[in-house]
Amino acid sequence: MATVPLLSDEQAPKESRAVFDAIREARGTDYINNFWRALAHDPALLSATWGRLQQVMAPGALDPLVKELVYLAVSTANGCAYCVHSHTAAARAKGMTDQQHAELLAVIAMASQTNALATALGVPVDGRFQAEAG
Amino acid sequence: MATVPLLSDEQAPKESRAVFDAIREARGTDYINNFWRALAHDPALLSATWGRLQQVMAPGALDPLVKELVYLAVSTANGCAYCVHSHTAAARAKGMTDQQHAELLAVIAMASQTNALATALGVPVDGRFQAEAG
Amino acid sequence: MATVPLLSDEQAPKESRAVFDAIREARGTDYINNFWRALAHDPALLSATWGRLQQVMAPGALDPLVKELVYLAVSTANGCAYCVHSHTAAARAKGMTDQQHAELLAVIAMASQTNALATALGVPVDGRFQAEAG
Amino acid sequence: MATVPLLSDEQAPKESRAVFDAIREARGTDYINNFWRALAHDPALLSATWGRLQQVMAPGALDPLVKELVYLAVSTANGCAYCVHSHTAAARAKGMTDQQHAELLAVIAMASQTNALATALGVPVDGRFQAEAG
Amino acid sequence: MATVPLLSDEQAPKESRAVFDAIREARGTDYINNFWRALAHDPALLSATWGRLQQVMAPGALDPLVKELVYLAVSTANGCAYCVHSHTAAARAKGMTDQQHAELLAVIAMASQTNALATALGVPVDGRFQAEAG
Amino acid sequence: MATVPLLSDEQAPKESRAVFDAIREARGTDYINNFWRALAHDPALLSATWGRLQQVMAPGALDPLVKELVYLAVSTANGCAYCVHSHTAAARAKGMTDQQHAELLAVIAMASQTNALATALGVPVDGRFQAEAG
Repeated sequence: MATVPLLSDEQAPKESRAVFDAIREARGTDYINNFWRALAHDPALLSATWGRLQQVMAPGALDPLVKELVYLAVSTANGCAYCVHSHTAAARAKGMTDQQHAELLAVIAMASQTNALATALGVPVDGRFQAEAG
Repeated sequence: MATVPLLSDEQAPKESRAVFDAIREARGTDYINNFWRALAHDPALLSATWGRLQQVMAPGALDPLVKELVYLAVSTANGCAYCVHSHTAAARAKGMTDQQHAELLAVIAMASQTNALATALGVPVDGRFQAEAG
Repeated sequence: MATVPLLSDEQAPKESRAVFDAIREARGTDYINNFWRALAHDPALLSATWGRLQQVMAPGALDPLVKELVYLAVSTANGCAYCVHSHTAAARAKGMTDQQHAELLAVIAMASQTNALATALGVPVDGRFQAEAG
Repeated sequence: MATVPLLSDEQAPKESRAVFDAIREARGTDYINNFWRALAHDPALLSATWGRLQQVMAPGALDPLVKELVYLAVSTANGCAYCVHSHTAAARAKGMTDQQHAELLAVIAMASQTNALATALGVPVDGRFQAEAG
Repeated sequence: MATVPLLSDEQAPKESRAVFDAIREARGTDYINNFWRALAHDPALLSATWGRLQQVMAPGALDPLVKELVYLAVSTANGCAYCVHSHTAAARAKGMTDQQHAELLAVIAMASQTNALATALGVPVDGRFQAEAG
Repeated sequence: MATVPLLSDEQAPKESRAVFDAIREARGTDYINNFWRALAHDPALLSATWGRLQQVMAPGALDPLVKELVYLAVSTANGCAYCVHSHTAAARAKGMTDQQHAELLAVIAMASQTNALATALGVPVDGRFQAEAG
């Protein structure tokens, strides 16, 4: 289905295999999902993407599950079927319950409809929602 | 700027004024933001939208701030400038800190780029990310 | 393919089965399409979505076929493959002819290209297209 | 605001002025809206766009108002503020009533939310929604 | 999978077969890809789309490969899986190397993330980025 | 207009001022545009974004102007008004001529319409457009 071959460990360039190893270690699983195998043609892009992902999704002021829910919401709004599937799985792996999933879907649906209404109505931003000059 | 006039309390139909009152009570403020004043032309749509919003955003398995962050993320991905402004304000009102805002932005940016990469690569969904038949 | 199992009648919660029955009665068919079977995990969301759909798509100032064409146009612009398929079928069931389908496609294509041009050119909204203050 | 200057009649290339004249005649007004003035830098693109628009929006199996509603719906889903404003005005000029506008908004909002739900759930297309081989 | 049958040469209307012939001649191959077979139900739309495509993609101030890369980038951002696949193939046929493909992906990913950031931050356009009045 | 204050040099954190300095040096101008001033609240995100941008947009197998055209095309499809303006300016600074700009717009418009058509028709990807297994 892909626009590039998904590279096996044997086919991937050496620098990409090193990223595969880092993914395996970080996740505690031998499985490398298709996204990384497709990116493996370009070790620089693979490495930059994986490296940045680790930084961004690390625990911080937001906990990892909340970050994952946000990721899933953005992926849905962007219509990325692959990402919707992979991040639903990731959210479950981080503890998302069925009830949380259901509430997430309801919020996404709600936002989608009010986004459309605000756009169709051309509603101007209220002055109080705008930041003061710095 | 809008495609319909924003209705003042005096101009709004009686049923829409009743929704304005409900908004004021729920939020503990006299201010009605532009979105609701634009929707007020159609009391049925105004009432359905406000009513559903109250249900969806109520505390549940996800807390209200997390729901607000998801709302803001979806609004960003959908490119709704009005919603981005109103829900950034709403998230702050529910306690979003500057650090949480910064991390939210980083996750949204990360998801946006991997969404694009997965789409451009046409990556097929891994079998393990698909739900078993019911 | 889905991120949740599609629930059969036997697997669905009792409240969801009641919505299935309502769908069957409204449509005069025993068939429940996959969208509703996926939503059935959350009876509240299933019920709210089906209920609202019935209200919104009922005959009014716009006839049901026109509403269905608009639904299909939005689904296309949002890139929802499932919805494009289900609402093309629904539009045909409501009487859409091949010629109407062809003209609909032409309008969607036309709008898509001028949307892109207006955005790329950053065209400011003409004063006369903006509503007077309420 | 634009990324190119909006060209007055005097500034526009001769071939673009000819398209301006055609617009004036078709619409029975002297006013040329900003979109065409921005496109006027490239007479070939201006001419192709205006010419195709006339063909696509002409009366056919769908009447001009229905086509305009579809255009407005697509413009909303694509988040084109300029197009939302210009096509709301165009729909009113073609007879759209306030009630029709309200119902259009409700359908757009409904589609937007089920589009998001179907995408988030990764719902597979039902076999019966797919066309038979030709 | 399609919402209309893909028409074979035998099934296509005569005017559509003429466009098929033009496609074959222009491309130097007997193969007609699915997009054109789906459009063939409406000879007018098929002919207008193919004709315009030939004009737009012809060598000009931008060379055909650059145009193809832009086409692929837009198709990615619009989430059109079919177009992503067909235009990746077209770009390769026009000489896109693996290294160019990799750099294209990196630019698309970069733009996607800064687009999201600029939208989430509601950044106002700098005066110097706006065109002078015409 | 922004959702955060745009930070002046005096208001920006020290680490963000260092990025401002790097931007000034790379561009040979004292002017810092609004995007970076909005990002300056989070030195880590500012630094990561600027750093990655420099890598991605550097000359390579694609020249910087081509990369800029792709960036502008993606920004248009994503509906980011800020990015459309800033990258149109950037493309001009890198040598984009009016004729190249006009052709770019035509390609973006063409892609947008065929993207919509392929989605509305649900066209299945031709086998020959799919990469062989790795």
